[in-house]
Amino acid sequence: MTNQPAPAFEPPYLMAVFSNVRSSDASGYPEALARMNEIVSANPGFLGHESARTPGGLGITVAYFRDHEALTVWREDMEHRAAMERGRTDWYDSYTLHVATVERSHGFVRNG
Amino acid sequence: MTNQPAPAFEPPYLMAVFSNVRSSDASGYPEALARMNEIVSANPGFLGHESARTPGGLGITVAYFRDHEALTVWREDMEHRAAMERGRTDWYDSYTLHVATVERSHGFVRNG
Repeated sequence: MTNQPAPAFEPPYLMAVFSNVRSSDASGYPEALARMNEIVSANPGFLGHESARTPGGLGITVAYFRDHEALTVWREDMEHRAAMERGRTDWYDSYTLHVATVERSHGFVRNG
Repeated sequence: MTNQPAPAFEPPYLMAVFSNVRSSDASGYPEALARMNEIVSANPGFLGHESARTPGGLGITVAYFRDHEALTVWREDMEHRAAMERGRTDWYDSYTLHVATVERSHGFVRNG
């Protein structure tokens, strides 16, 4: 993941917004995150993702997929399902997931 | 804005994801942000928003609207348009905006 905004992909595409507040339990979390990145990156319909976290506060991760099929493969991955369960028991105090179809997008990069 | 994830609203609703990298120029930015919050909050179709920013890195703001009409009113607001122009000339090095219709959502809050 770079430090730049994900690009504006060609609509339509899928976008999953995961906003969350972490718990104080980080046991196994960095390893799981690395493994999840590995799995989702191998999905041919995965377009990219981006994350931001305010220290001590809210984290927002956005993942982009070409179509519903790609997102379904990701949602139903067995390791991902186990990680989601771990998230509810251990890693997150609260979260919301919004799944949406992107209708339009555009990007801006300053010149010079 | 609280430090909790926005709730899962009743689909369908609109979601605008604005991911950005700030420039070093913050002149007038806090005041403009406060004014934009004031304007959008007065929009009857505005459902809520949430933001996270990694220090020195990416910021992600997500705004939720009931329908396209509410989002159009926000996009065409004259003060908002002036602020967007200011954003391109002064406040942002890069950004991407994705506008989408949310098809499903769910939330989790830890008990106890």
